[in-house]
Amino acid sequence: MTQNLRIICKQRPQGIPKPEDFDLINAPELTLGQAQLRCKIRYISLDPYLRGKLSGRHLSGPIHPGDPMISETVGEITESQDPTFQPGQYIRAFTPWQHEVVINAADAILIDPAIDPLSLQIGALGMPGLTAYAGMIRLAHPGPGKTLLVSAASGPVGSSVGQIGKIQGCHVVGIAGSEEKCNWLKSSLGFDSTINYKTQDLREALARQCPNGIDIYFDNVGGDLLTAAMEHLALNAEVVLCGLMEQYNKDQPSPGPSPGLVIKARATVRGLVVYDHEDLREQFLAQAKLWLKNGQIQFKEDVSQGLESAPQAFARLMAGQNFGKAIVKL
Amino acid sequence: MTQNLRIICKQRPQGIPKPEDFDLINAPELTLGQAQLRCKIRYISLDPYLRGKLSGRHLSGPIHPGDPMISETVGEITESQDPTFQPGQYIRAFTPWQHEVVINAADAILIDPAIDPLSLQIGALGMPGLTAYAGMIRLAHPGPGKTLLVSAASGPVGSSVGQIGKIQGCHVVGIAGSEEKCNWLKSSLGFDSTINYKTQDLREALARQCPNGIDIYFDNVGGDLLTAAMEHLALNAEVVLCGLMEQYNKDQPSPGPSPGLVIKARATVRGLVVYDHEDLREQFLAQAKLWLKNGQIQFKEDVSQGLESAPQAFARLMAGQNFGKAIVKL
Repeated sequence: MTQNLRIICKQRPQGIPKPEDFDLINAPELTLGQAQLRCKIRYISLDPYLRGKLSGRHLSGPIHPGDPMISETVGEITESQDPTFQPGQYIRAFTPWQHEVVINAADAILIDPAIDPLSLQIGALGMPGLTAYAGMIRLAHPGPGKTLLVSAASGPVGSSVGQIGKIQGCHVVGIAGSEEKCNWLKSSLGFDSTINYKTQDLREALARQCPNGIDIYFDNVGGDLLTAAMEHLALNAEVVLCGLMEQYNKDQPSPGPSPGLVIKARATVRGLVVYDHEDLREQFLAQAKLWLKNGQIQFKEDVSQGLESAPQAFARLMAGQNFGKAIVKL
Repeated sequence: MTQNLRIICKQRPQGIPKPEDFDLINAPELTLGQAQLRCKIRYISLDPYLRGKLSGRHLSGPIHPGDPMISETVGEITESQDPTFQPGQYIRAFTPWQHEVVINAADAILIDPAIDPLSLQIGALGMPGLTAYAGMIRLAHPGPGKTLLVSAASGPVGSSVGQIGKIQGCHVVGIAGSEEKCNWLKSSLGFDSTINYKTQDLREALARQCPNGIDIYFDNVGGDLLTAAMEHLALNAEVVLCGLMEQYNKDQPSPGPSPGLVIKARATVRGLVVYDHEDLREQFLAQAKLWLKNGQIQFKEDVSQGLESAPQAFARLMAGQNFGKAIVKL
């Protein structure tokens, strides 16, 4: 029998994770029971929220040292003990990062094999895409003439948010961390303007690029970036709080903007957790496939090759060095 | 001619205002022009937001050293150059703190002389009452089984908020700063429980008194009190940000709660400014008069006598030493 390798958390990361915080071990032997599936993992999704799990404070539960790393993956069924699944079909599920897994059929969701690449099912057509869709369609009220600001704009959530904003007629401003990312947002995705937070004065740039204030701010970052955005809100602005990139690498959560900024703008601030919006998934998928086909939504993936590359790729993601949806291809 | 005295800001207060920060001077001579009214001021409303104006950072504009103190007052018309107003009628308006004023008829609003005391028109039936009503009826969604928490609960806004919450069927918990205030909230206003933030451990008390979490938090304070409340939100909670008592006496605004608390609770946080809700005033007045008549809304006033008492009364208000709506009676 060939080895079935698994990536585990070796030690709780301090600050930005390092490859040494993880380990590659042999997975426990797999046995296939009733109503279970054996799958070969093809793609692993790397996401910033995993860093919160490693600190033990994400709402989906902790990952402790010794635990396998778990995230959403695409698997190919090789053996099925459930009549509704057949070998050769593809599924998505939350699984350990390893070559082969056995999961309960009830936890697997069949995916459309015609979508190319299949990794889109855990990217632009998956959780990040649904996150953007729920935030923009259910929580916020975009429309022509409104200014939409989005942070971590070149990431899978941010880039979908901005493109949905363009489809809805918004003036879209994106914040990203490199000239390459900013150029892509403008030239490929049609963002109206961008701010490179590493080289530009954030407040000066916001004042210049959002002269009538920000009507919708979709926040993937928190920290001072959130405060700066809230200092530039238009009256009756909407703020969708979705991600906390600024604090995932920290031991303690950072404080937020002064409540006076919410009062001054008569803003509505809402917290977004994608799990609450599963009921939107079918509508989202139908719509997003159409947008993709029409070229109204484009995507970028940052693909690393091989299970062994996952720790390094996750470290790059958490240092903001990825460009596009971080995916590990097995 | 008798003297017409006026209270001005003498110097920008440092921290809690002191009577020495104000001065009593002779007002400029009054001349009555077309479409103007001469009024004797009967009641002056003292409100915490005035402290923000003295720091130059309230959204209704600053009060600079040398400027008259201005707030909402009840006046009796003694002379009218406008056909729609008659001497002997009572009005409310924003005027300087002085014995006699001349104002534009367009800035005066006639009030019902049958309401006793007339000071209710700038209290439970005025801006503080409308603030509570707009927050509870338009921004939040109270109802049976929901837990409502309100801070500065014995103040004119907080006590109205809690009583409207009771009328709507909520379980109402109030935060106040003395046993006397807490006892009044429970025994006279029917609050279900109270927290004395000066003597109790806030987080422990919130966990005990809101065991299913806080569904609606009406915040008049900000600071750590806001953070503690947001640590105890129920899922899908609503937070109405209305006042910033914690920071009015400070030079710099305080930071707010971590955005992760909003995300975790899927909360909706909204900023309330009463000026936006003038369209509700008639509906509010009709409803609140009925509630008052039926004893469903009770009120308490902290009345000081004479124009000269206003600086001391305002200092007491900003030190949290008032008990009830701070009013100066002339």
